[in-house]
Amino acid sequence: MNTTAVIMAGGKGERFWPKSRTSCPKQFLSLTSDGETMIQKTVKRLLPIVAMEDIFIVTNSAYTALVKEQLPEIPTENILAEPCARNTAPCIAFAAAVIGRKYDDAIMIVLPSDHLIANEILYADTLKKAVTVAEKGENLVTIGITPSYAETGYGYINFGEEKDGAYTVERFVEKPDLPTAEKYLASGKYLWNSGMFIWKLSSVMANIRKFMPDIYSGALKIGESFGTAEFNGVLEREFTAFRSESVDFGIMEKADNIYTLPGSFGWDDVGSWLAVERINDTDDNSNYIDGDVIAENTRHTTICGGKRLIATVGIENIIIVDTDDAMLICSKNSTQDVKKIIARLKEQGRNNLV
Amino acid sequence: MNTTAVIMAGGKGERFWPKSRTSCPKQFLSLTSDGETMIQKTVKRLLPIVAMEDIFIVTNSAYTALVKEQLPEIPTENILAEPCARNTAPCIAFAAAVIGRKYDDAIMIVLPSDHLIANEILYADTLKKAVTVAEKGENLVTIGITPSYAETGYGYINFGEEKDGAYTVERFVEKPDLPTAEKYLASGKYLWNSGMFIWKLSSVMANIRKFMPDIYSGALKIGESFGTAEFNGVLEREFTAFRSESVDFGIMEKADNIYTLPGSFGWDDVGSWLAVERINDTDDNSNYIDGDVIAENTRHTTICGGKRLIATVGIENIIIVDTDDAMLICSKNSTQDVKKIIARLKEQGRNNLV
Repeated sequence: MNTTAVIMAGGKGERFWPKSRTSCPKQFLSLTSDGETMIQKTVKRLLPIVAMEDIFIVTNSAYTALVKEQLPEIPTENILAEPCARNTAPCIAFAAAVIGRKYDDAIMIVLPSDHLIANEILYADTLKKAVTVAEKGENLVTIGITPSYAETGYGYINFGEEKDGAYTVERFVEKPDLPTAEKYLASGKYLWNSGMFIWKLSSVMANIRKFMPDIYSGALKIGESFGTAEFNGVLEREFTAFRSESVDFGIMEKADNIYTLPGSFGWDDVGSWLAVERINDTDDNSNYIDGDVIAENTRHTTICGGKRLIATVGIENIIIVDTDDAMLICSKNSTQDVKKIIARLKEQGRNNLV
Repeated sequence: MNTTAVIMAGGKGERFWPKSRTSCPKQFLSLTSDGETMIQKTVKRLLPIVAMEDIFIVTNSAYTALVKEQLPEIPTENILAEPCARNTAPCIAFAAAVIGRKYDDAIMIVLPSDHLIANEILYADTLKKAVTVAEKGENLVTIGITPSYAETGYGYINFGEEKDGAYTVERFVEKPDLPTAEKYLASGKYLWNSGMFIWKLSSVMANIRKFMPDIYSGALKIGESFGTAEFNGVLEREFTAFRSESVDFGIMEKADNIYTLPGSFGWDDVGSWLAVERINDTDDNSNYIDGDVIAENTRHTTICGGKRLIATVGIENIIIVDTDDAMLICSKNSTQDVKKIIARLKEQGRNNLV
């Protein structure tokens, strides 16, 4: 059975403002010193498992030019342009319907476009195991990340017994408070929900039909028109009519045959500016510094410089990001609030800065 | 007797980098919302006491164009250009020698160019009283600032008994440590040394002759050549040969007839970026914000914006100063260390940023 991959690349990356903008969100940025963008890395690490012509990118129609520019090897017909954002369930249904025109059945690996993986060998091995599990019956497999601390910013997967080389899933739980996260960590029965899914096309379509029949029928219409002159019109009409729904809530929390495979391959969701010091080398003062910077008595600080000199004196635990038209100076405790700056800019009608 | 004023405007203002540069130091900047530069304010507040044509500006030769531009009303011949920096004693001797060509004797008010005064009426009244004291005998009068807290960054004046409408000076003391400053404050017998002096030309010349005969003879030569074709050559030769000497050490700590008048007119030496929040209005979060700024959960922070948006999130007690080619982000505890950035830039040979 062919193995295909669907990379979901429609995110807005608001927490990486001011580098991430509506016109070029996080997945199209390089946040590491090697200069590769997040989505380029995502494709590259898939190549030991999936052929280039079987990698599909679902993104917002505003970003298809960026995808073509950054990933010229991906066949143009594999770049699926959503006319609007409807969360992960319609995204996956759209991709599944299109892949259904190419293969009667296939393995579908569904991945975010903006995460980092430190150990790509272990990553590929884990995905291969997941493919083996997914090939059996109607199994829906998700990769769970072995928690290294009591993170409150992720959803968790409570797993049960070992079965068929994976673990059954008892339940998915939302982002916990700290005492709950600590309990999860101590129990040894919880994994972080990474948003990576592996299943057969036939399995996911059966579950979409069962739990989201409206989305199923719209997706079928989109798939039927794929490659025809009607495609754009059908896509626009059907996709726009979809409700927003996550695949977690729409399928995973309801379906049977849910399995999880623990992954320990150095996963980072690069969820905020705090990630930059985790995914890059830091200096003797625990600073990550990129660009023209003079740091005097500065510690635990992340500086992503721009075209001008940035001089810091006596600061710590600060994130500084410079761009041509906007600069962020943010406490490390407040990285989740970067979104509030975007909200303020929108209120002010300053869309050129968003 | 005519009253003249000498404004010392040769400072480098390094603690106000990156706004203050070698090419345009602090005294030529506006640090208040009214847009007036420090030296413009200094001249303006003197006008109730001194006629424009009796105000002399001593500055580095690199800044004469800036002085002419900012103070077009000052007669060109009153702008005295030092060929190099030699601290306050040679500066005052130079000015005294030149004024000696205009007046046989006169009152000389000597002032820094880069301080702020909140109450200009009380300031003028204090200077007038000082002039009265200076007119008697060979009195050398200095304005002492009534301390409002135990500052360790200023020198202090220990005053004695009241005499002739002023106080005798027991001694000048260098910047104290905190316990000493607290003792000074509690004693009620100490004032801050503001660097403002009032004396007769004849008095100061007599004391320069007595305590710094080398500088006296050089200054006389400069004065004699003033207005002749030889002036620039004499000035270059004599002034460059002067040793660096402060008037405090060179005269005030040695002379007799030293008097001080306590001033309580809202003096601020604008000694570091910390001053900006003192001399301007702050908002409800105790921030001083100038420019295009979005401040989210930001307190006790000073932001001097430039041409781009500055967004702050969750920070406090930080000073942010933006310019076209360099940006400073400095803890309020570290404003004295801004000079270290300049030292680093010089090491790197980046004189365009100094």
